[in-house]
Amino acid sequence: MTSDIRTLAKKVSGGDRRALARAITLIESTRSDHREQAVELLECLPPGGSATVRLGITGIPGAGKSTFIEAFGLYLTGLGHRVAVLAIDPSSPRSGGSILGDKTRMEELSRHPDSFIRPSPSGGTLGGVARRTREALQVCEAAGFDVVIVETVGVGQSETAVFEMVDMFLLLLVPGGGDDLQGIKKGVVELADLLLINKTDGDLVAAALRAERDYASALHLLVPLHPGWTPPVIKVSALEGRGMDEVWAAVEAYRAALGPEALATKRASQSVSWMWRAIEGELMDRFKAHPAIAPRLSEQETLVAQGKSSPTLAAGELIKLFFAQGPS
Amino acid sequence: MTSDIRTLAKKVSGGDRRALARAITLIESTRSDHREQAVELLECLPPGGSATVRLGITGIPGAGKSTFIEAFGLYLTGLGHRVAVLAIDPSSPRSGGSILGDKTRMEELSRHPDSFIRPSPSGGTLGGVARRTREALQVCEAAGFDVVIVETVGVGQSETAVFEMVDMFLLLLVPGGGDDLQGIKKGVVELADLLLINKTDGDLVAAALRAERDYASALHLLVPLHPGWTPPVIKVSALEGRGMDEVWAAVEAYRAALGPEALATKRASQSVSWMWRAIEGELMDRFKAHPAIAPRLSEQETLVAQGKSSPTLAAGELIKLFFAQGPS
Repeated sequence: MTSDIRTLAKKVSGGDRRALARAITLIESTRSDHREQAVELLECLPPGGSATVRLGITGIPGAGKSTFIEAFGLYLTGLGHRVAVLAIDPSSPRSGGSILGDKTRMEELSRHPDSFIRPSPSGGTLGGVARRTREALQVCEAAGFDVVIVETVGVGQSETAVFEMVDMFLLLLVPGGGDDLQGIKKGVVELADLLLINKTDGDLVAAALRAERDYASALHLLVPLHPGWTPPVIKVSALEGRGMDEVWAAVEAYRAALGPEALATKRASQSVSWMWRAIEGELMDRFKAHPAIAPRLSEQETLVAQGKSSPTLAAGELIKLFFAQGPS
Repeated sequence: MTSDIRTLAKKVSGGDRRALARAITLIESTRSDHREQAVELLECLPPGGSATVRLGITGIPGAGKSTFIEAFGLYLTGLGHRVAVLAIDPSSPRSGGSILGDKTRMEELSRHPDSFIRPSPSGGTLGGVARRTREALQVCEAAGFDVVIVETVGVGQSETAVFEMVDMFLLLLVPGGGDDLQGIKKGVVELADLLLINKTDGDLVAAALRAERDYASALHLLVPLHPGWTPPVIKVSALEGRGMDEVWAAVEAYRAALGPEALATKRASQSVSWMWRAIEGELMDRFKAHPAIAPRLSEQETLVAQGKSSPTLAAGELIKLFFAQGPS
């Protein structure tokens, strides 16, 4: 345990924002020495107590996630909560940029003393990004943020990653999605503990009512994720800041319905899947760096590229080599 | 090489539909003996020639993907093409079911003698599902299907998986998404070689025109994926079967613009990333089955679940054990 890491940990626990930012930067670094320091840091930070609230939120692009988080976050700081917002967004394979990286989309909240907003780590696989976000979540809780909101985009695999690191999963919907209930239902809606129909304002009010009915009836077709909790559907207007009190009331009702034991059980099984994500990431890093593999990689890649070997075959060759040589 | 696998390969190459279905079932099996047979099978099937057309298609739920694929597929069979439709859809963590598994959503096409529709393999990680779908694609081409359409859902990681196995990536949009251009642009739109505004019918025609303008102008902000090809935006109505000829014309124009060399180069680099996906899947399988790990797994999982060890720490322990013991 190096002393500067211990110092950093102390500062983080003391709520030092600069230290928090530095800690997360350390966690997000791909340098192996940074990784070791990050593991040390996580070791000497207290595990998040169940007193904290971990919320995941997703919705298709255009659902108004950022607007909602800004409005909801400001409402919570008004109640005296300290709110951290993290994002999971596997970066674009082309730009390497982060969709959710644009802080200006939550301008007021990002300037608030009781809030901390961190864009998605850019680069890397979903697994890697999720792993670093999950560790950042632990650090935020250690820094005294009692509500952590993890935002993600899309209807893809990233929902599962977020679902696996939060107590409660919120799905932000927009009016008009009703016609596709069938398509959404099995995917993401069934992960949701709470459905929000956003943009319940202007000329979408009628459509919002329809959507509310459609989703509410669809939810009854699902086996509840937790006995004693049927995901409610709440109409909100992030733009006008309406419904935030109802949303928070639903969050508290959910925690009461589950009770501390069920919540603890949920976090326990989540930790196990996080362990698996960490193993996968580490295995691939070791594989690529293995002395018996590294020099052969480009050769095999060339054979595959030239069609002289198939991806399945080449993968088999390298795997054989990896295990034949034993540990590095 | 077992003789029945050779026989199966012959039947597949002969266009035997039942053999094709059996081959894909073999590929999708998680049993290790089946996996070996699947690898054998892939070895003795010809690699797909560049004469085939590999199309990926995505869009948010409600965009009308299935309706479009049915209309487009029937149009192509009308031109004398043989069309295979595969799906990538990491199954829901809860139901284990496949969102795209519902064949009845493409009723007419699924009954057509010159088409073959295969739902997404259920279960497993995105990596596993994508890997099996990619192998199924090779088998379909070997069976004489000259157009393979790989469908996926969402705005998540699965797009990347599909993007990495097709020649051309189609994004199906609906009118009204224009307000979120910023949000979509960096993620999925930039992967698209062709944008389709679906539901250009009824009272959405005006909105479709707006969306077409918005996306067309947004696309000019992007560095083209291929020099000499700016993704066009085409308005279609899958419901009324309008615009299918334009879509196919765009596909042919795209292939002409790239030329055979660029297409070959693209498929080459795709094969390399498939190799990586295969390695990752195999590594995790071996890890879980490793004699030094398997007996310790539940113990470590319990420590993590009880909060007596952190996911990061436990992962480190197991990784150390895995490499200390050497090959199994």
